Amino acid sequence: METLLKRHIRDVPDFPKPGILFKDITPLLQNHDVFKKIIADFTKRYENEGIHAIVGIESRGFLFGTPLAHELGAAFIPIRKKGKLPYKTVNVSYDLEYGSATIEMHEDAIERGQRVIVIDDLLATGGTAEAACKLIEKQGGKVVECAFVVELGFLNGREKIKSPVHSLVKYE
Amino acid sequence: METLLKRHIRDVPDFPKPGILFKDITPLLQNHDVFKKIIADFTKRYENEGIHAIVGIESRGFLFGTPLAHELGAAFIPIRKKGKLPYKTVNVSYDLEYGSATIEMHEDAIERGQRVIVIDDLLATGGTAEAACKLIEKQGGKVVECAFVVELGFLNGREKIKSPVHSLVKYE
Repeated sequence: METLLKRHIRDVPDFPKPGILFKDITPLLQNHDVFKKIIADFTKRYENEGIHAIVGIESRGFLFGTPLAHELGAAFIPIRKKGKLPYKTVNVSYDLEYGSATIEMHEDAIERGQRVIVIDDLLATGGTAEAACKLIEKQGGKVVECAFVVELGFLNGREKIKSPVHSLVKYE
Repeated sequence: METLLKRHIRDVPDFPKPGILFKDITPLLQNHDVFKKIIADFTKRYENEGIHAIVGIESRGFLFGTPLAHELGAAFIPIRKKGKLPYKTVNVSYDLEYGSATIEMHEDAIERGQRVIVIDDLLATGGTAEAACKLIEKQGGKVVECAFVVELGFLNGREKIKSPVHSLVKYE
């Protein structure tokens, strides 16, 4: 599985800024056999875990999150950058390398006691995912696991996240 | 179907600016029975149309586009705002009420002759969807239809789009 996925992840040098080797996941979406395998893999992992909701982080987390929610028969809940969600929100701020960022969720998105999977395309430093977990727990949700397609292991993001972490592809 | 969906679309006054009544589609995602019905409806409409790719417009188009591509066994291709896609892109600019906007697609996303559905959550003035169609046709793709969950009929966006248009819910 990991070898197959790595063949469909494209390295783009110097994006979004010089010196960064970006992992482009769009070829995974373009090949429907590969995309189906990804969704099937996540579905199998979570189908007997009593998951109420998949929380997807804007915007590449949406790409994997809604098909997974659809397969599991779970709710899908978007987490977005500040100011993007229309209704009343709760938010969490977190530090970035330079400055800070704020993410939001609708205040009625999670019900107390719900079991939730957080999903995003890529785990880098883990700041956004850990902030997402805090937001969910603040609303009384339980983060069963944070799931990623790609993990940049050399950035040690996994250590920043208090919930269990799962990824399909790891770069060391 | 339309009545069911309307019960799960939330009106948010004065978003994103005063005087606009925003149609919030997040409750449709939160109720998995309703979400399944939406995806099933689109799937039934397109399953015998020889569709190669679903093109989703950032970022709410991603929410409906990947589950539909997954069901149809089609490729998923994202269209994003300028500067967001990592690899080489083609782009189209279009006029907004004030100023202009540019959207992009990866240059190798569409193959000549491919049959494509453009999807977004909502049809307002139609500017972005028509720009998306131009981008696809520029690459040799054929837009079979532009599909929306919600259509704001009173903005006449349908008239701006040269390809066929389909929506599940219409507000007059």
